[in-house]
Amino acid sequence: MHNLAIYGFGGVGRAVLAQALPHFTLALVADRSGYVVGPLSNERWLAVAAAKAQGTTLASLPEGTSGDWRAALPAGCLVADTTAEANAAQLVELVAQGQRLALANKKPLCDDLNLFQALVGERRTRYEATVGAGLPIVVTTNLLRDSGDQVQRIEGCLSGTLGFLLSSIEQGKPYSSAVREAKALGWTEPDPRDDLGGVDVARKALILARTLGYQWNLSDIAIEPLYPAEFADLSIAEFMAQLEQLDAGYAQRQAEAVAQGQTLRYVASITPDGARIGLQAVANDSPLGSLKGPDNLVAWTTKRYQERPLVVRGPGAGVEVTASAVLFDLLALC
Amino acid sequence: MHNLAIYGFGGVGRAVLAQALPHFTLALVADRSGYVVGPLSNERWLAVAAAKAQGTTLASLPEGTSGDWRAALPAGCLVADTTAEANAAQLVELVAQGQRLALANKKPLCDDLNLFQALVGERRTRYEATVGAGLPIVVTTNLLRDSGDQVQRIEGCLSGTLGFLLSSIEQGKPYSSAVREAKALGWTEPDPRDDLGGVDVARKALILARTLGYQWNLSDIAIEPLYPAEFADLSIAEFMAQLEQLDAGYAQRQAEAVAQGQTLRYVASITPDGARIGLQAVANDSPLGSLKGPDNLVAWTTKRYQERPLVVRGPGAGVEVTASAVLFDLLALC
Repeated sequence: MHNLAIYGFGGVGRAVLAQALPHFTLALVADRSGYVVGPLSNERWLAVAAAKAQGTTLASLPEGTSGDWRAALPAGCLVADTTAEANAAQLVELVAQGQRLALANKKPLCDDLNLFQALVGERRTRYEATVGAGLPIVVTTNLLRDSGDQVQRIEGCLSGTLGFLLSSIEQGKPYSSAVREAKALGWTEPDPRDDLGGVDVARKALILARTLGYQWNLSDIAIEPLYPAEFADLSIAEFMAQLEQLDAGYAQRQAEAVAQGQTLRYVASITPDGARIGLQAVANDSPLGSLKGPDNLVAWTTKRYQERPLVVRGPGAGVEVTASAVLFDLLALC
Repeated sequence: MHNLAIYGFGGVGRAVLAQALPHFTLALVADRSGYVVGPLSNERWLAVAAAKAQGTTLASLPEGTSGDWRAALPAGCLVADTTAEANAAQLVELVAQGQRLALANKKPLCDDLNLFQALVGERRTRYEATVGAGLPIVVTTNLLRDSGDQVQRIEGCLSGTLGFLLSSIEQGKPYSSAVREAKALGWTEPDPRDDLGGVDVARKALILARTLGYQWNLSDIAIEPLYPAEFADLSIAEFMAQLEQLDAGYAQRQAEAVAQGQTLRYVASITPDGARIGLQAVANDSPLGSLKGPDNLVAWTTKRYQERPLVVRGPGAGVEVTASAVLFDLLALC
């Protein structure tokens, strides 16, 4: 069995561990504090995961070591990065050493274009989990690209949180209550503007665009946040307190869309000419318009899928399905 | 570059050739008459394809040879089977010799269970194109299986022809005119009962079920044909002449569905307990109910996708997209 290292041992990292144990020899798991190296029994690995779930750091466990886990990697290892670190340069080093990577971590793929190309150029890095979690979105984009199809447009709803928000507004709920509800459900970051700002969606769009070969950076993507510019510098508490000021504006935009037989979605749109992330009125009977709630959806319009797009849809977040995409990549890299 | 052989040189086989030329060294192409071996220039290969498209057999070309193409295969070759032959035993022999296979041909996967297992057991055979053409349906099923998810139900509309038929009935068109129109468009086999009978859909369902590990044969799948048993023994001409007798029955079933807020679809339903192919009333706002026209759709309900299914949808037929799935498999087998 191939050796596997897991860096990042939060919910996704631990789910990768549990799903991967039947398929791989676990060489090490690492978090910011340090790492635990194998061999350990499967039972013991699961106990390490249980301890971490209760708040213990890996370095403080009996088997734990502090220091740089990379030095402890066996040669020709598979590495799953489930962190949210901007560690592209370090990952490129690993690839140069002959390691193979499966990423749930979007940030290294959105760094400098040269780093992206160094990471994925040798096809030693896969990243299905970075867009739509377990939904087969990257693999579908690869299928279209590799078979010589010409992608003319990718349109996607790539944030469950923003999908929930816009479905709520569609149902007549004020923007402010929808944001508060999403925050209370734990669906937003502690600062909801981290979701409402659209940067996470833009990262996903950039990953798809780069997968198609477009040589873009994050700064090339036009982003319309779901709050006005003057709200950017407020504290979280001030932002939450002033949400009601935005209710009328979003309700009106939704009403204008409805008057046209349309509805509002937060759409990532990628064409060979550029990408745009923002609020968009879409026809009720279009794939994006028929979407309800937090599901993700991606529609590819291509030379071959021109009259009607290829569509993938479903829950695009969650620890177990994100881990399943990482495992899919790990198995493909064997 | 890896060696590639293409067996079956109809529309799909020729599209595989055109898509594969940038990626592979074409070792040979074969049809029922014989074969042409490389090396040839890309231009010459395309000329061979053009001649075949005009009705010439491969054996009768200047470069052609009659006889068994298998004897001319280089070792460690990739083989694309784009025929409709029931040639499982021969393919198993090829796999045993170390060749790797990409199939657009469903029949070998639906033969005896032992042959299926011998074909796919070593993961030297892939078959994305056999279900939904270029749509990522087999790869998604693999993703769910390999990551340890538990598939509870797969529901699919897997025939563009029958999707067109039922959409037409939904729009108030009589069954007879819809069948005649599909036949006139070339969307049915010369005998439309080959489509209406549901066996082709059942083959796709069996392939998905076997992919999940269910040890079933085609005879284990309950099939409801879209015509009554007493129409089975008519000649094609008699069948076409008597279609009007069926109009009232199907119109009534559709009306009954509408009265319940439902509509009729021709559904393949696969659960761990068995598979069933037939007419089914589905809710208008369900994924299957929202489908219109000839698109294919598959919805996976699993332990992890339980509340809302994972859905793939789009055109599920066509020479170019079928070939693109074969190419996807060939690249994955490299």
